[in-house]
Amino acid sequence: MNNKLKLGILGAGGFTGQELIRILSRHDRAELAYLTSSEYAGKKLVEVFPALLTPGAETLAFSAHPQVVGDVPKLDAIFLATPDEVSLKWAPLFVGQGIRVIDIAGAFRLKNSEDFKSYYGLDHNAPAALAEAVYGMPETSRAAIKTANLVANPGCYPTAALLPLYVYRDLIDFSKPVIVDAKSGTSGAGGRKEKDGLGYSTVYENFRAYKTAKHQHAPEIAQQLALFAGQKVSLRFTPYLLPMYRGILSTAYIVPKAAATDADFRSAALAVKEPFLRYRASVDSIELKSVQHTNFCEFSHHFDAESGLVEIVSAIDNLMKGAAGQAVQNMNLMFGLEETTGVY
Amino acid sequence: MNNKLKLGILGAGGFTGQELIRILSRHDRAELAYLTSSEYAGKKLVEVFPALLTPGAETLAFSAHPQVVGDVPKLDAIFLATPDEVSLKWAPLFVGQGIRVIDIAGAFRLKNSEDFKSYYGLDHNAPAALAEAVYGMPETSRAAIKTANLVANPGCYPTAALLPLYVYRDLIDFSKPVIVDAKSGTSGAGGRKEKDGLGYSTVYENFRAYKTAKHQHAPEIAQQLALFAGQKVSLRFTPYLLPMYRGILSTAYIVPKAAATDADFRSAALAVKEPFLRYRASVDSIELKSVQHTNFCEFSHHFDAESGLVEIVSAIDNLMKGAAGQAVQNMNLMFGLEETTGVY
Amino acid sequence: MNNKLKLGILGAGGFTGQELIRILSRHDRAELAYLTSSEYAGKKLVEVFPALLTPGAETLAFSAHPQVVGDVPKLDAIFLATPDEVSLKWAPLFVGQGIRVIDIAGAFRLKNSEDFKSYYGLDHNAPAALAEAVYGMPETSRAAIKTANLVANPGCYPTAALLPLYVYRDLIDFSKPVIVDAKSGTSGAGGRKEKDGLGYSTVYENFRAYKTAKHQHAPEIAQQLALFAGQKVSLRFTPYLLPMYRGILSTAYIVPKAAATDADFRSAALAVKEPFLRYRASVDSIELKSVQHTNFCEFSHHFDAESGLVEIVSAIDNLMKGAAGQAVQNMNLMFGLEETTGVY
Amino acid sequence: MNNKLKLGILGAGGFTGQELIRILSRHDRAELAYLTSSEYAGKKLVEVFPALLTPGAETLAFSAHPQVVGDVPKLDAIFLATPDEVSLKWAPLFVGQGIRVIDIAGAFRLKNSEDFKSYYGLDHNAPAALAEAVYGMPETSRAAIKTANLVANPGCYPTAALLPLYVYRDLIDFSKPVIVDAKSGTSGAGGRKEKDGLGYSTVYENFRAYKTAKHQHAPEIAQQLALFAGQKVSLRFTPYLLPMYRGILSTAYIVPKAAATDADFRSAALAVKEPFLRYRASVDSIELKSVQHTNFCEFSHHFDAESGLVEIVSAIDNLMKGAAGQAVQNMNLMFGLEETTGVY
Repeated sequence: MNNKLKLGILGAGGFTGQELIRILSRHDRAELAYLTSSEYAGKKLVEVFPALLTPGAETLAFSAHPQVVGDVPKLDAIFLATPDEVSLKWAPLFVGQGIRVIDIAGAFRLKNSEDFKSYYGLDHNAPAALAEAVYGMPETSRAAIKTANLVANPGCYPTAALLPLYVYRDLIDFSKPVIVDAKSGTSGAGGRKEKDGLGYSTVYENFRAYKTAKHQHAPEIAQQLALFAGQKVSLRFTPYLLPMYRGILSTAYIVPKAAATDADFRSAALAVKEPFLRYRASVDSIELKSVQHTNFCEFSHHFDAESGLVEIVSAIDNLMKGAAGQAVQNMNLMFGLEETTGVY
Repeated sequence: MNNKLKLGILGAGGFTGQELIRILSRHDRAELAYLTSSEYAGKKLVEVFPALLTPGAETLAFSAHPQVVGDVPKLDAIFLATPDEVSLKWAPLFVGQGIRVIDIAGAFRLKNSEDFKSYYGLDHNAPAALAEAVYGMPETSRAAIKTANLVANPGCYPTAALLPLYVYRDLIDFSKPVIVDAKSGTSGAGGRKEKDGLGYSTVYENFRAYKTAKHQHAPEIAQQLALFAGQKVSLRFTPYLLPMYRGILSTAYIVPKAAATDADFRSAALAVKEPFLRYRASVDSIELKSVQHTNFCEFSHHFDAESGLVEIVSAIDNLMKGAAGQAVQNMNLMFGLEETTGVY
Repeated sequence: MNNKLKLGILGAGGFTGQELIRILSRHDRAELAYLTSSEYAGKKLVEVFPALLTPGAETLAFSAHPQVVGDVPKLDAIFLATPDEVSLKWAPLFVGQGIRVIDIAGAFRLKNSEDFKSYYGLDHNAPAALAEAVYGMPETSRAAIKTANLVANPGCYPTAALLPLYVYRDLIDFSKPVIVDAKSGTSGAGGRKEKDGLGYSTVYENFRAYKTAKHQHAPEIAQQLALFAGQKVSLRFTPYLLPMYRGILSTAYIVPKAAATDADFRSAALAVKEPFLRYRASVDSIELKSVQHTNFCEFSHHFDAESGLVEIVSAIDNLMKGAAGQAVQNMNLMFGLEETTGVY
Repeated sequence: MNNKLKLGILGAGGFTGQELIRILSRHDRAELAYLTSSEYAGKKLVEVFPALLTPGAETLAFSAHPQVVGDVPKLDAIFLATPDEVSLKWAPLFVGQGIRVIDIAGAFRLKNSEDFKSYYGLDHNAPAALAEAVYGMPETSRAAIKTANLVANPGCYPTAALLPLYVYRDLIDFSKPVIVDAKSGTSGAGGRKEKDGLGYSTVYENFRAYKTAKHQHAPEIAQQLALFAGQKVSLRFTPYLLPMYRGILSTAYIVPKAAATDADFRSAALAVKEPFLRYRASVDSIELKSVQHTNFCEFSHHFDAESGLVEIVSAIDNLMKGAAGQAVQNMNLMFGLEETTGVY
């Protein structure tokens, strides 16, 4: 008998699912007991993703997705790396069985259920679960996460944009619009399937904005900013697709409070004591190479006296801090483990 | 005896020089009479850049750089695809010899000679030439270009940013800061030499801002915006290095005038009758693939009622419209040719 | 009334179709009279592929594919940039209408109709057309192409591999196996659709062989080698997918005839008088950058005394010399034009 | 007091040095006691390579290179990730101090000291150390490695090519030439410096062979093949530069022994019991994605009855199995640790 958490991953064959397998198969307190994949059901991990193989993972294999909740073995927790509508259906069922849920889809991130219709095309029919769900950003909600049964893991763009805005929150004039101009690799912009728009010939040597008018991460960022600000915040959010695979670099332009100085911004940044936030002295030092394959968010700011604006640049690995890494950080908190286990 | 313009390129071996060769060797009225390159002096074009070979170019070869102006043959015009300090020295000499100059370096772009010290590290010792130089953006300065002896070809970022801001200039509240967040491939961010910071291992699968605090294109953009606005304009300019080779995508965030509507912006865009400006209905349609290897600038806007901002996205090929293509467009104007010859 | 050839492209929206539009819209003697595309029917060229726009092409638009041959206007020639089975059906119909056909699919490349079943999954039901079809490699079959009504444009790998083997043919011991190890960008390995296996996340930062056991270009290479050799030739052909878009670099390992020397190989190469074959002194000089966007094949050889083998390396742009460029070269020959028109 | 090995890395700032830091900072029995770098001397690891940071590595910093051996602290072993001439000088000095050496440069890989002059431009002045040095390929030399004081870690191309040829060695007719056609990412083709030829603009969207006539890994492969074969082996070796960063895919063409069948090759592959060799049923399954960031070599063969050749394809991560990973595997063997520690 061991003291390991018995864990499941629904949708383990996608980009995020693979990253979860990579992390959890090396996590001292984790046992991967249940991996589902419609595409790879019946196959062993080593056949499908040989590069993921780690000691002890030689026998891992994919199951078919469950039909009913009774198909699922007894687990301590399950990660949902599934489409939004699948999460919406299954998360309450798992919680009902006593399985704690970390949902990496978007189905429980917004508090206003009407927004799901508008931004996700979802009729949100699980109001009780939605009310119970905790937004799983440890830096802003650590206490609530520890006791949560359903954690809504933040979106990748919101993670990149919000973390430094949280750091500087007391210095920002939130009555003015916040601009977030955020650039992502292809792994953050779509699933593992090679859909139209993510083929090599379309992406390579190209760059463009997408969903400028309406991206589902915009209301999520605005919702959390309103919590930081204590007021509604006007947001202009533009995501772009980089000709690369992994990482998000987010630039926010904000108006500082009248009295706030460059030194105040610097002090706020240096005061941070978070294991995965790392301040750099110059925004030019923030680059994707520095955070890839890590759970860190690196950030800096440029206080521009001439325009009266402050530019805040941050970088994350969208599959780690923006998805699987943050999810494991949440799991660690939920089960009383050291928060950095397996992701540092 | 032919009616072709006898042309020279100083610094013909760099990225922009190569592009000029490509264009001019197919240009009906151009004769490439003088190509210099320190690295390739004495070599034939076909040896060094076989992909550039076009009919009639089989015999082209590179000369060494001139030591004195007498080393240069009789020419109608010369393109300077050289470092700033080389342009600064040679442009007045060529003009003095009756050779009209299109300078693709930055040495004559700014009107305030003090800025050259601050942004280029140049002691600008050619005030007469600077006073005479015409900023070579045909869409804004066509008449002056036609008679100029010294044209300062615009920088790549300024070209990308300014063209749509010129289109919309009457609708913008220029008392508010203009933000330009512009992303470039590597060919726009440095010369042909593989300097530190432009190696494959540094650039691939990476993304970052650079020279955020002080880029030499910032005063150029601000200078021209002030001309559009009739007032000083406060600018926040941030350039980024994309993991790709060719193209600049620029996003500007501006505050519209109080009465300006989305329909006004659209009308202004549709009213444009410029051969190389192309409006698209959605900013999501603006992408680098659409302009690569062309002299077009594609642009669009997003009128964001919620934040009260208008987002203006534009794309150019930095080596064409941002350098060699625009330079040939200027040459065509200077010599009374059809403006689009060779670049459409 | 003009003296331009009235031309059609069936399947004008794919990679090869786009390249044909690019070439032919600048070709002095070509008029693009008929472009079909199932995906873009009814749309103007400028909407779909703005970067292709050239003077005079502003009004070009895509039609739906024809249902019956009567839907097709009177044309001098038509290019088939279509799937194999579409070419198989339509090529004889066009020829029957007096429209000369350049088929860029594989449906008429092999002379042994049984091979179509084995390698293409096609029941070849047009034996008369197959017998009449001319293999459209100008360097080896110029005379026959001039009078052909149906030209089978060679495959991209065969073009890259065969051209230098033809140059050196008298020096090769064809009783020994010929090894062709050929590496292609993604545009040669599939159509424009982002099929499984050609997504950005699959291709980037990856490399592998594919169809090693059975690729449809193997019998085509073997068939033509047999013509060069006057005997059956044993071939080992392996194609690979490069993490890039455009170009094929092919390495052939052959056994030289007993008396053949390095000097003999060099003499054979230097004796070539073909407009699109270019010999380089070293195999290390053969690279894809030198041929991209051109119709050239660059090649060289390394005579390896130690192993007794000769290594022959060649490079082409698969969309130009390997598809559209060679097709236009064929068209020029068929209509008595200068062979290089529009592709040099 | 701990039971950890005190380890040093000379040249810790290069690609291989970084990879060693990554591995060893997570290795249960390793203590990184000494890191040198000319470029980063005096800097902390977290400043220079933030993505490498692992628990316990927060305080790691780079020293200057030693001037004399007395500058080096007491160590159990040192890794030399240095230029060949630096290894040549320092390896004997360290061994003389009782510090066991794993040399990742090429200075001790060849047994014929004349070859160093010809292939490395080195006057090999350390014959005793050369005689003592053990070629550090665990799969072929495990016993000798365990007691070695100086291990010559194999080159990246030799590792990729030799491992499967060793597996199949009894089935190969070594009286016939062996062809190795091997393709590498940029990290295997040069150091960290962005030298001419490895700039982004040169590498991206390009592919070519290099050092075809004379690459320093050719004599290394031939030397080891001769040991497998018990006779001199004629080798044709061609390396290529892929437009990507990480990995080598090697294709060998060999003539099988007369009686050898496809089943024999398959049996030989299936009989392998090596922790880091993994056989796949098809050569088309061998791809760089499967081995990146791992210490595995994946391989397969295609038995081609038609040509009478067998094609053997293998893939490694050049920085792991081809450099740092194999080096740590060697260290584990030298100190009696489980061979897979830290690299599986």
